[in-house]
Amino acid sequence: MNPATPHLIVIGGGFAGLWATRALASESLRITLIDRRNHHLFQPLLYQVATAGLSAPDIAAPLRHILRRQRNVEVWLGEVAQVLPDQRQVQLADGRTLGYDYLLVASGATHAYFGHDEWARDAPGLKTLGNALNLRRKLLMAFEQAEMEPDPQARRAWLDFAIVGGGPTGVELAGTLAEIARHTLKDEFRHIDPRQARVRLIEAGPRVLPSFPPDLTDKARKQLEKLGVEVVTGTPVTEINAHGYRLGETFVPSRTVVWAAGVAASPLGRTLGVPLDRAGRVQVGPDLSVPGHPEIFVGGDLAAIAQDGKPVPGVAPAAKQMGGHIASVLKRRLRGDASAAPFRYRDHGNLATIGRMAAIVHVGRLKLSGLPAWWFWLAAHVYFLIGFRNRFVVLVNWALAYWSYQRAARIIFGQPDEGQAGEKQETPPPAL
Amino acid sequence: MNPATPHLIVIGGGFAGLWATRALASESLRITLIDRRNHHLFQPLLYQVATAGLSAPDIAAPLRHILRRQRNVEVWLGEVAQVLPDQRQVQLADGRTLGYDYLLVASGATHAYFGHDEWARDAPGLKTLGNALNLRRKLLMAFEQAEMEPDPQARRAWLDFAIVGGGPTGVELAGTLAEIARHTLKDEFRHIDPRQARVRLIEAGPRVLPSFPPDLTDKARKQLEKLGVEVVTGTPVTEINAHGYRLGETFVPSRTVVWAAGVAASPLGRTLGVPLDRAGRVQVGPDLSVPGHPEIFVGGDLAAIAQDGKPVPGVAPAAKQMGGHIASVLKRRLRGDASAAPFRYRDHGNLATIGRMAAIVHVGRLKLSGLPAWWFWLAAHVYFLIGFRNRFVVLVNWALAYWSYQRAARIIFGQPDEGQAGEKQETPPPAL
Repeated sequence: MNPATPHLIVIGGGFAGLWATRALASESLRITLIDRRNHHLFQPLLYQVATAGLSAPDIAAPLRHILRRQRNVEVWLGEVAQVLPDQRQVQLADGRTLGYDYLLVASGATHAYFGHDEWARDAPGLKTLGNALNLRRKLLMAFEQAEMEPDPQARRAWLDFAIVGGGPTGVELAGTLAEIARHTLKDEFRHIDPRQARVRLIEAGPRVLPSFPPDLTDKARKQLEKLGVEVVTGTPVTEINAHGYRLGETFVPSRTVVWAAGVAASPLGRTLGVPLDRAGRVQVGPDLSVPGHPEIFVGGDLAAIAQDGKPVPGVAPAAKQMGGHIASVLKRRLRGDASAAPFRYRDHGNLATIGRMAAIVHVGRLKLSGLPAWWFWLAAHVYFLIGFRNRFVVLVNWALAYWSYQRAARIIFGQPDEGQAGEKQETPPPAL
Repeated sequence: MNPATPHLIVIGGGFAGLWATRALASESLRITLIDRRNHHLFQPLLYQVATAGLSAPDIAAPLRHILRRQRNVEVWLGEVAQVLPDQRQVQLADGRTLGYDYLLVASGATHAYFGHDEWARDAPGLKTLGNALNLRRKLLMAFEQAEMEPDPQARRAWLDFAIVGGGPTGVELAGTLAEIARHTLKDEFRHIDPRQARVRLIEAGPRVLPSFPPDLTDKARKQLEKLGVEVVTGTPVTEINAHGYRLGETFVPSRTVVWAAGVAASPLGRTLGVPLDRAGRVQVGPDLSVPGHPEIFVGGDLAAIAQDGKPVPGVAPAAKQMGGHIASVLKRRLRGDASAAPFRYRDHGNLATIGRMAAIVHVGRLKLSGLPAWWFWLAAHVYFLIGFRNRFVVLVNWALAYWSYQRAARIIFGQPDEGQAGEKQETPPPAL
């Protein structure tokens, strides 16, 4: 390719970065897509990996493979340490720098503990496949520990599960975990009854799934309770440690607390030298470029933009639309048209799953709950999974799980007596 | 259950331990099955997980789930530190002891470096799911590193793969890796051509797959070469480090050496205080019990027994047959019949796969190679996978891989910036 061809660097192969990259397939651009991981992740189904319903590879596809036919793209597995906007360069964690003509920062968000980073140790969150596999091990191991624990009080704490945060991830985790305790593990233990496990969903605000209308939220709560989840609202968690958590004034002994409460933007936003919002997101202009730097765009969960007085939500459809919009702005720029068409988020609706055959859906004036909502959710999610193979395997897994209540991926691996040494074996790794 | 009921402890949920346990379902016995992992592993397909063709859960099933309906069994997730034959107790790694009336030690084997344990760091082996996932990461990362390496010599070393050991695992790994380099990764890189990768299979002895007749071994070698594998026989590897390996006198720069050469029995055999063979296996009596301890049995890869002047091989069918035999000896004992029927291994044949549509089969007077052998191998292995679901998903994955040359599980996860901290989070873990 002609070295005079303009160079676009895309940081992050999530929905925003990948959608922008694909939309620029026929442009005369050199694109370098940099990601810390080798795969695009279908994050909306991450909770299924954490709860052993799906294998990690079911919801991920290698970025190289997705983009193999797009000859103007090169995929880099690497970590970006900072953006140097004045030099038009990005610096990688290994010290190398890479110059750009255009830049799209779409490095997303991670979970945040609102100033309580010490909680991370005892209340892991869920943003990556690594997180999901750790959480899977933690959940499955709790039942194993309970089975072997002779002391009734200590056993009780192993069977006490708390999910902090009543957003979609918290609701999905709580509903699925209740299902596992009540159905999947039935008959498998000799000293405990997994159905005695307490699964608590704790939301500091007045209701779960606050992005839905109150009547649907009510239905979600009822469905959760029917599945066996204890829903606690209006009470914040004020302490978390290895022995349990404090809810209001009461300390509850629990060995398994999961964090689904907070999200903070990727720290890369800070290196752009432009205004951020409270969650660290970059306040972008109407065309999703950065004020003062028309050659830098920000998309996906890292971008803060308001529409009709409300923030555009950090969901996959918004990220895809941002990616598409940035691509179209860039296309015009490459043709010499500097007009900055404003981004508009088209809200196609809001879905949340709760558990087996339980969900809520809000699309325009349509409101569904229970089984019809669940079918709607299932169809939408399987449809949007990238790649034919994944879609098909996921369907098969779900069909089998549906009939049998079984979960295909209840495998604990990665004991320290094996493998973990291997983690440290790798030589000069850019991303390992 | 009546506490006077005799107590059998089974150490290890592999083929020998699990088959013995299941055969004792209707006996008046309390059985405790202890395993370090929560799953039975279909080891013959482990190389498929390492080479990203299958997900880890595809070839594993939770022991609790397999045995949930067998009410005389309790499954313990734990590590046995030693057997105390005189006290009739086993001691767990956490210090607890457990008494038994009968004991089956079936803790298998691990890979061994023949006095070169320092090679473990740079030449990982393949015995567990943790090993397989590490190896997958190492293989996939080598191509990523090569893509980003500007120095041609250093790049060459990233594209140099050596598999040490020409047994079934070495042959499978080499054949599959050549296929990945030649077909799967085609078109995905911009700076390297993965087809330039060198895949070398190194065997110190005179030929690969020495358990087969020489004419089939020849065919295997030809099939390997056709797939692009360089087969080196009669030359030992005398040194392995982070930069490469020494083959005879020559040092070959290589960043990826895989160990498939040696097997050593589980160290538990040593704690029995009875004669071991050179590989650390327990020399059992004709009924598979331990000399001087008729209440202790040893089965599977840990047991050394000769038949017609040849050692019974360490393969899955032999382990299953040993498990079944031990169960039948025990049944007679429980009825007061102390006769020790001798074990006889029924050899149903020998299969080895080499790659896509390449295998060799030796069953009685039947010898197959190439495509027919591969179909035979495929049918046999899918049939023997435990559990309907796994069998079905594996078939689907293979059917899709067959048509597309794609590999479903090319996902690298577990970077140290995530998750790994979680490995250390777990509180008093018996097996973590």
